[in-house]
Amino acid sequence: MHKLVIVGTCAFDEIESPFGKTGKILGGAGTFIGLAASNFEVDQAIVSVVGSDFPQEYIDLLKNRGINMEGLEVVKDGKTFFWKGRYHNDLNSRDTLITELNTLADFNPVVPEAYKNAEIVMLGNLHPLVQLSVLDQMNKKPKLAILDTMNFWMDSALEDLKKVIARVDVITINDEEARQLSGEYSLVTAAQKISAMGPRFVVIKKGEHGALLFEKDKIFFAPALPLEEVFDPTGAGDTFAGGFAGYLTSTGDLSFENMKRAIIHGSNLASFCVEKFGTERMQNLKPEEIEKRLLKFKALTQFNLDL
Amino acid sequence: MHKLVIVGTCAFDEIESPFGKTGKILGGAGTFIGLAASNFEVDQAIVSVVGSDFPQEYIDLLKNRGINMEGLEVVKDGKTFFWKGRYHNDLNSRDTLITELNTLADFNPVVPEAYKNAEIVMLGNLHPLVQLSVLDQMNKKPKLAILDTMNFWMDSALEDLKKVIARVDVITINDEEARQLSGEYSLVTAAQKISAMGPRFVVIKKGEHGALLFEKDKIFFAPALPLEEVFDPTGAGDTFAGGFAGYLTSTGDLSFENMKRAIIHGSNLASFCVEKFGTERMQNLKPEEIEKRLLKFKALTQFNLDL
Repeated sequence: MHKLVIVGTCAFDEIESPFGKTGKILGGAGTFIGLAASNFEVDQAIVSVVGSDFPQEYIDLLKNRGINMEGLEVVKDGKTFFWKGRYHNDLNSRDTLITELNTLADFNPVVPEAYKNAEIVMLGNLHPLVQLSVLDQMNKKPKLAILDTMNFWMDSALEDLKKVIARVDVITINDEEARQLSGEYSLVTAAQKISAMGPRFVVIKKGEHGALLFEKDKIFFAPALPLEEVFDPTGAGDTFAGGFAGYLTSTGDLSFENMKRAIIHGSNLASFCVEKFGTERMQNLKPEEIEKRLLKFKALTQFNLDL
Repeated sequence: MHKLVIVGTCAFDEIESPFGKTGKILGGAGTFIGLAASNFEVDQAIVSVVGSDFPQEYIDLLKNRGINMEGLEVVKDGKTFFWKGRYHNDLNSRDTLITELNTLADFNPVVPEAYKNAEIVMLGNLHPLVQLSVLDQMNKKPKLAILDTMNFWMDSALEDLKKVIARVDVITINDEEARQLSGEYSLVTAAQKISAMGPRFVVIKKGEHGALLFEKDKIFFAPALPLEEVFDPTGAGDTFAGGFAGYLTSTGDLSFENMKRAIIHGSNLASFCVEKFGTERMQNLKPEEIEKRLLKFKALTQFNLDL
């Protein structure tokens, strides 16, 4: 089995949406990425930090999905990163009500010795210096480094972010952020400019409108699965990234054709994530459910023009 | 050759965009639909009305694309429908500056005798009573009636619009309009409700985010081609509808599989339409350009999961 290192938050989320309120539940980019990647044959480790208030039950849940948690630092008497948000009626926009960095403020990631030779590194949304530190700890350049980031770091730590961008092979970013980072409205031009900053592959996430994969002049598009009801979009982007990274790690194939499949697997898993609050739907996802929905993606997008 | 009847405006457009101003140019839903459909082997007629200010050159342009113009009423001393709009910087929204109905205000469409047995009828965006009149003039129920409409008629003539909707096989409508018409936010649920009003097929246009085709529990999605530069979106929706109708007419195949191909052909033609102002790009489109870009759509969307 190929190895995958993930750095990202393990956290408490509290979500208010038109469908109800959750109270404090398990969340965090690292959590969603790891859960998604655990649907593939991979040897993965999450590097993260929590406080002693983080329930052992949550750690066990991740371990039971085959995730190595040696890289999870538990800060004694520390408090876990907490985010509370409220979604608007259309679920496409949200307000952040509370962000408590807590132990995340002084996070020094430590990659477990056994994972310093991992083939694939997934840098979840975090301060660019934390992401850089993980890259620096690898014994050799990984076969593929994937970066997820957001506008917050473009506003507050752009120069550091550019250093990470220069060192990764894939960047995943949403459409508005791609426009902000490149200064270009057209996503085609934006992807070209971002690729010139470092990453060979640029993945632009458009939420309910799907995702685009760019490599030089090649473009691939995967729609989001049209759903009767979206319940909670929290973690969908991380789940997409985790499915993408997990599939690539399990296959060890980094061709553009396989990247396309990885995008479809990521979109497929994200379509489950939004069906329930938080990680609920992702905790017990069955292989037959995943395969059945992949067939829906095929039916949704495949045609035959006889060209 | 199968016959296609189109009812829709032949008009003057004047467009302001970040790329410049056009002055008065050829426009109108009927014009864009006819030009798009003329890329297929069809025997088509446009039913419309203009004033004597409408240049013979424009009529000849449409005739030279093989379009029968007997159904174009030229009102002596009348003025042609005129629309002037200004696009915002992102080209996704626009303000209407001028709408002069002129001869359109009293338009009584007359379907040419030779086209009253047409297999396919395309009802371009117009007052629902005008659309109904065209359906009523057909000798027999066409094999397929396609309706394009917009929110303006939902606000001003909803009961008449519902009568048209009840009588067509396909409705094409944009995402916001589908939500307004159905009262549902989810496009899946919206399509189900709209289908229950009459049309077996529901096509939801999402502009730069592509288009969805629904028939009962089947869904197909076609993205818009990601372009480096969108120049002028005017007529893209009509071009999409014209390509869809033209392809279906030329093949005479109304299966879901062929509808999927028709959606791709419509999206393909729309991707050309937006590259220049007004009808400019559509006037001289070459078969080899069309085929080359169809291959781009294939590359953009096709994958192999080995399932």
